[in-house]
Amino acid sequence: MTARGLFVSFEGIDGSGKSTQARRLAETLRAEGRNVVLTREPGGSPGAEEIRALLLQGDPDRWSPETEILLFTAARRDHLERVIRPALAEGKIVICDRFADSTRLYQGLRGSDLRAKVDALHDLMIGVEPDLTLLIDMEPAEGLKRALARHGPEARFEGFGEALQTQMRQGFLDLAAAAPQRFRLIDGARSEDAVASDCATALAEVMA
Amino acid sequence: MTARGLFVSFEGIDGSGKSTQARRLAETLRAEGRNVVLTREPGGSPGAEEIRALLLQGDPDRWSPETEILLFTAARRDHLERVIRPALAEGKIVICDRFADSTRLYQGLRGSDLRAKVDALHDLMIGVEPDLTLLIDMEPAEGLKRALARHGPEARFEGFGEALQTQMRQGFLDLAAAAPQRFRLIDGARSEDAVASDCATALAEVMA
Ligand SMILES: Nc1ncnc2c1ncn2[C@@H]1O[C@H](COP(=O)(O)OP(=O)(O)OP(=O)(O)O)[C@@H](O)[C@H]1O
Ligand SMILES: Nc1ncnc2c1ncn2[C@@H]1O[C@H](COP(=O)(O)OP(=O)(O)OP(=O)(O)O)[C@@H](O)[C@H]1O
Ligand SMILES: [Mg+2]
Ligand SMILES: [Mg+2]
Repeated sequence: MTARGLFVSFEGIDGSGKSTQARRLAETLRAEGRNVVLTREPGGSPGAEEIRALLLQGDPDRWSPETEILLFTAARRDHLERVIRPALAEGKIVICDRFADSTRLYQGLRGSDLRAKVDALHDLMIGVEPDLTLLIDMEPAEGLKRALARHGPEARFEGFGEALQTQMRQGFLDLAAAAPQRFRLIDGARSEDAVASDCATALAEVMA
Repeated sequence: MTARGLFVSFEGIDGSGKSTQARRLAETLRAEGRNVVLTREPGGSPGAEEIRALLLQGDPDRWSPETEILLFTAARRDHLERVIRPALAEGKIVICDRFADSTRLYQGLRGSDLRAKVDALHDLMIGVEPDLTLLIDMEPAEGLKRALARHGPEARFEGFGEALQTQMRQGFLDLAAAAPQRFRLIDGARSEDAVASDCATALAEVMA
């Protein structure tokens, strides 16, 4: 979707290292003197963070899957308009910790026609994809082990169990296979440094 | 959309008397021993009221028109699932102060392709219409006079001026012309009692 900057997302199952690697990539690029905006979803703009709070607080069945995907899409639209697009227009590199692919899988797997609804909402109201998506791939058991080690108050979307994480992982791999130009697969079951180095290399190749 | 009950909405420009007449119709029907749920939009369910608060608080340009229609649709979906559908399934009469027609006009008029987006979102995520829509019609000048007399803190969606109210009125009349089976036109520029009597008559005809 680039105007002049570059839009990069991190995706992967729970605990795969997205937030860690997004932060590290931002640090690496800033050390090179680049202008970087590090952001996350759901949230990333003041309005979207308020919608995020609605999404993450309260009972797990507080919102139906359909209402939830509408709220996710509203938050994403706000984030896109207020943060991502303006930064790209100024030539910045935007690094986003999760984007639409997470919604496709996490919300899309909650019911039979939900994935189709997520896709239709995306086409209608968002309509853009990152220039590059770094998919941090690993065995679900490894991601769960890491995620459980630092379970926070926003646990609603975690604790799905290994079967669902396996579905998620496969879902991400399927998305990557369907859009090979956009995705780069990163083996996340290694040291932080090794993963960070692969991410930086993938980015350098896209910018070359 | 009726399962067994009846779904009635009130529509019309600002200050036309929707809330007054919705309340009166509910009272009349309850006096006849009927089971009535009186509700309103945006809002009408706990979740939707929280989304309503996000929509109505803060700067007028807090949300873009596109984010706004996503939030309206999220609130409507919640209201439909948690309040309207369950009540109809129990055979109740649901009286709703504004429904999707208001979004079609208020949000639909905010930009060139917005009406198409409102319609597409409705088809995708809501998909139902009231059995009966009572359109309280009047000159915009009359409605504005009444609305200004009791301007509250939720004035964001008011004060649009007479030109826009004239567009709204015509928009409602166009919707009614396009769906004559669903709409009943009520002349609102009369006494409360006269308008209430027409509303009750229209309802009785539909239930006959
Ligand atoms: N390469 C690594 N090796 C071992 N532990 C790691 C590695 N990368 C991150 N961790 C640790 O694993 C945990 C999860 O990492 P992180 O929060 O970055 O993952 P995430 O993908 O953002 O998770 P979530 O999906 O829950 O947001 C953290 O405690 C982090 O310090
Ligand atoms: N038939 C009537 N004649 C004179 N005044 C009326 C009549 N009906 C309602 N009003 C008064 O006009 C004002 C607006 O009425 P009401 O709040 O019912 O309109 P509304 O359509 O719900 O407005 P809004 O669009 O702002 O929600 C109120 O002060 C109400 O008491
Ligand atoms: Mg994270
Ligand atoms: Mg009212």
